[in-house]
Amino acid sequence: MATSVDHTPVDIVDIANFDHEADVLVVGYGCAGAAAALSATASGAETILLEKLTGGGGSAALSGGEICLGGGTPIQQACGFKDTPEAMEKFLNAALGPDADADKIHAYSHGSVDHYRWLVDHGVPFKESIWESPTWVPPTDDGLMWMGEGAYPFAGIAAPAPRGHRVTSPGFGGKVLMDVLTQAVAATSISVHTDTGALRLITDGDRVVGLVARHFAKTVTYRARKGIVITTGGFADNKDMVKQHAPQLVGLGVTSDGGDDGSGILMSQAVRAAVRHMSAGQVGIALIPGMMVRGMIVNNVGQRFINEDVYPGLVGQAALYKHDLKVWVILDERAYEAVPEAERWGVTPHFVAETVAELEAELGMPDGALQTTVSEYNRHAAAGDDPYFHKAARWLRPLEAPFAAIDVSRGMAPPEYGDATGGAAEVFTIGGLHTTVDGAVLDIDGRPIAGLFAAGRATSGLHSWGYISGTSLGDGTFFGRKAGAAAAAG
Amino acid sequence: MATSVDHTPVDIVDIANFDHEADVLVVGYGCAGAAAALSATASGAETILLEKLTGGGGSAALSGGEICLGGGTPIQQACGFKDTPEAMEKFLNAALGPDADADKIHAYSHGSVDHYRWLVDHGVPFKESIWESPTWVPPTDDGLMWMGEGAYPFAGIAAPAPRGHRVTSPGFGGKVLMDVLTQAVAATSISVHTDTGALRLITDGDRVVGLVARHFAKTVTYRARKGIVITTGGFADNKDMVKQHAPQLVGLGVTSDGGDDGSGILMSQAVRAAVRHMSAGQVGIALIPGMMVRGMIVNNVGQRFINEDVYPGLVGQAALYKHDLKVWVILDERAYEAVPEAERWGVTPHFVAETVAELEAELGMPDGALQTTVSEYNRHAAAGDDPYFHKAARWLRPLEAPFAAIDVSRGMAPPEYGDATGGAAEVFTIGGLHTTVDGAVLDIDGRPIAGLFAAGRATSGLHSWGYISGTSLGDGTFFGRKAGAAAAAG
Repeated sequence: MATSVDHTPVDIVDIANFDHEADVLVVGYGCAGAAAALSATASGAETILLEKLTGGGGSAALSGGEICLGGGTPIQQACGFKDTPEAMEKFLNAALGPDADADKIHAYSHGSVDHYRWLVDHGVPFKESIWESPTWVPPTDDGLMWMGEGAYPFAGIAAPAPRGHRVTSPGFGGKVLMDVLTQAVAATSISVHTDTGALRLITDGDRVVGLVARHFAKTVTYRARKGIVITTGGFADNKDMVKQHAPQLVGLGVTSDGGDDGSGILMSQAVRAAVRHMSAGQVGIALIPGMMVRGMIVNNVGQRFINEDVYPGLVGQAALYKHDLKVWVILDERAYEAVPEAERWGVTPHFVAETVAELEAELGMPDGALQTTVSEYNRHAAAGDDPYFHKAARWLRPLEAPFAAIDVSRGMAPPEYGDATGGAAEVFTIGGLHTTVDGAVLDIDGRPIAGLFAAGRATSGLHSWGYISGTSLGDGTFFGRKAGAAAAAG
Repeated sequence: MATSVDHTPVDIVDIANFDHEADVLVVGYGCAGAAAALSATASGAETILLEKLTGGGGSAALSGGEICLGGGTPIQQACGFKDTPEAMEKFLNAALGPDADADKIHAYSHGSVDHYRWLVDHGVPFKESIWESPTWVPPTDDGLMWMGEGAYPFAGIAAPAPRGHRVTSPGFGGKVLMDVLTQAVAATSISVHTDTGALRLITDGDRVVGLVARHFAKTVTYRARKGIVITTGGFADNKDMVKQHAPQLVGLGVTSDGGDDGSGILMSQAVRAAVRHMSAGQVGIALIPGMMVRGMIVNNVGQRFINEDVYPGLVGQAALYKHDLKVWVILDERAYEAVPEAERWGVTPHFVAETVAELEAELGMPDGALQTTVSEYNRHAAAGDDPYFHKAARWLRPLEAPFAAIDVSRGMAPPEYGDATGGAAEVFTIGGLHTTVDGAVLDIDGRPIAGLFAAGRATSGLHSWGYISGTSLGDGTFFGRKAGAAAAAG
C-alpha cells in the first residue's frame, strides 16, 4: 500500500537555499490555477504558477466547457430567461447535497454575475443562444443549456432558469476556455514553470512557507513570501486513494488529463489539512439524454428509478451507486428517430424487438418485469402524467412497437467524447480539501493553516455528494480567484 | 466549523515530566481496548487502559452482542453446520465490499476458530443452539444465528453457514460481553484510568511516544515506552466529522454510548495518519425482519429493491443510500400472525386494507404502483419463484387480503432496542484509520507510524462499504488482540 512518494513536509531549517521565490505560488495549471494566478497577480503579488505536465490545461481543458453561472447573466437575459441569485442558491443546495456547502453556494450564487463579467473580461466567449434538449454537451456552439433546473424535484424547489453557460465551441469547450485563460496568464507577469511537480510543502512552525518540487531529475525549492494555492485537481488517477476513499469507483474509467493524482491533497494532509466527502464521484455513463428522455431508463429488473429529464450526471450517479451500472435505456423507433443524428454520438440500439415481452426476454429480465413497467408508464403517459418519477409532460407519450434497448454498460467512445475509454462509466472525484469561502485550507480541528490556500477539484468545493456539470469549472475559477486574492493578502 | 479541541501533537521537548508511564497505552475501553490491553499484558507489557467515561464498556456494551465467527467453531459444529475459513473469507469479501480489506478478511477468517477459543478462555459464554429466523437480535439466548449467509447473492458465492455467534443473553448481549472482558482485565495487572480523555499525542521525531490527557480539570501526561493503541470507536457522535465525511447520516439517530467522538481518529490524523471509507455507515432501521421476510419491503413508488431474507443491516443501507429511508414493509394478516409475539418488538401495522389498491392509495403511492408489484410478486410466488430479487422459496407465497403496511420511517423504541430514539434510523460510522493486519496505523503515504496502533471502529477494519452485524465486536476484539501484541513488541 505504501506509495513511492513522500509527502511529509520539510522544516525550513533543513532548506539550505531557495531556488525560486515569489509572493504567491500556485500549484497546478488547470482552470482553478489560472484563475488563482490571475487574481493573485491582479492583487499585486509576484506569482509563480507550477505545472507538473508540459503545459497548462489540466483536466479542465478536456471538459465540456460548461460553467454554472446564473442570477441574471447577460446570456440568460439575451435568451429571455429571468434568474435570481436566490433561485440559483436554492437550486444548487438541492442539486449538490445532501448538506452541500451552503456558505460557498451563497457566495457563488450572489457573485455569479460578477464572475461572468470576469470571465468575459478575460476573453472567454459565450454565445447568446440556447440549446433546449437534455444533453451532456450540445453538438452546437449554443451558449446556454439546461442542467435539469426545470426537472423534478428542482423545478418545485427553485424558479427554473438554464444556468449551463457554454464556452463557445462546437462540442466540448474546455480547451477553448483554457486557451483563453492561458493567453490571459501569458499577458501578465506570472511566471509559468512547467514540468515542475510539487512534492512536499516547506513549513516554518505552523506556517506553510514554500515547497519542494521536481523538475525532471532535479529537485528545486520554492519560497512563498505570502501564500501557496493548491489547485492540483482531484485524485481519480491515484488508485490507492480511490481504493481508500471511493471504493465504488474502483476499476471504472477516469475523466482527467492523467494528472489527477491527489498530490496536492496529500501534501496538504501532511500538514494536517482536513478533507471532506472523499467518497463522492461524478459519473458519466454512456447514454444519450435525448434518447433516454423520450423513452426511459430502467435497472436490471426493469424498474425505472429517476425522471429521465433530470441532468444526466445525476442519472449516472443513481446508475452507479444505486443500480451497480446495470441499466438500460428503453425506447421505441419513434423516439430514436426523433433524436437528430448529431445528438446520437454514434449510439445505436443493441436490441430491437416487436414486443416488450420479447425485449424483456432478450435483456434477461424477469418475466413480466419490463412489461409491467412499460404498461404502467404508457397508461399514465397517455394521460400526460408520470406519477412515479415526475418527468415533464412534454416528454411523455406511450411507447409503441417496435421497441429498442441500449445496454448502457457497454459504453461508447465517439470522437466528441474526448479520451473516453468506452467503458461502463467515466468518473472523477468530487471530494477534497476543506476550505473556507475565501479559499483558506482548514486543518482537522477547523483552523486555517497559515499560508495555505486551495481551489478547484483539489477541494470539495460547493459539493457534498451531488454534482451538476459546470460546477467544477465554475467553482474552480470562482474560488480560484478568491484563493489567489487571499494568498496575495498573505 | 472550528472545534474547541486542539489535536495537534506535542513535541516531547515541550513535556517537562510524565505523570504516568507504561510499555503500552490503550486509549478507549470498549471491546477493542479490552482485547488490546489483555493481549499486551499477556505479551509481558506493562499496560495502562485509559477511558474518558466513568467506566469501561463503550458502544460495545450497548450492542446486540453478536460476534462474526466461523470456519468451523465448536458452536457451529454442535449445531450441525460445517464451515471452512475459505467459505467465511468469500462471504465476508462479498458482504463487506466493494473492495473490502482482503488481507484482513483472510487473517480474520483463518484465525476465527482460534479467536473463538480466546473469547471462551476469557469467559465469554456461547450457547450451543441456533435461532433460525431472520432478525436483528433473537429474543432468546440462542448462541448462533444467520447473518444472511444463506440468502442471495451470498449463498451462491460461498457455502452458507450461520456465523453470527451470540454472547449468551436474552436479547442484547453486548453488556454481557463487556462485563466478562472487564472481569478479565480486572484479573490482570492492567491499570485502568477512567474519566481520562486523551487529547493529543506526544511525538519524538517521527515516533509517537506518549499522550496528553484530561482527568477532570487536570491535564495529565502519559509516556508509552513501546506503543499506543487507539481504540476510541467511530465518530457518529461528532457532528462536524459526520457532516464532513458522511452527509447521508446527518440528522439521523446514533447507535453509541455517546462517546464516539472521533477523537482517536483526529489525534492520529494530526500525526498524518490515513483514513479510509469515512462515508460508510451501518444503518439500523425500524423493521421487523420476521415480518419483512414473510411479506416485502418497497420504496415510495411501490418497488421492491432487495431480497427480504438478506441480513437486515444491508436492507437498512439500501433503504438509506438508495431510497432516502422512504420505505414500507408490506405484508398480509397471515404473515403478521406468523411472527411470534416476542419477535414483534411491539410493532403493529400503521395501515390495514382489504385490497392492495386501497393500501396503495393510503400510502400515497402512484395508482397501480403497489398493485403491479404485489401482482407480479404473487404470480411468481405461486410458482415458488422470485426472479426479481431471489428471496428463498421458503419465504415465498402469494399475499392475500387483508393487507397491511408498516411505515419504516416512523421508527420504534422498544426497551430491547437499547437507547433507540425511535427516529427513522440509528446509525454508526464504519470508516476510520487505515491500519495493517497487525494493527499498525499507516500514514497518508502508506508507511507505519512508529509507536501508533489502532483497532475497532476507530479503524475501517475489515470493511469497505458493506456491514454485517458481528463484524464490529469481531474485528474489534480480533484486531485489538493483534494491535496490543504489536504494541507490546514495540
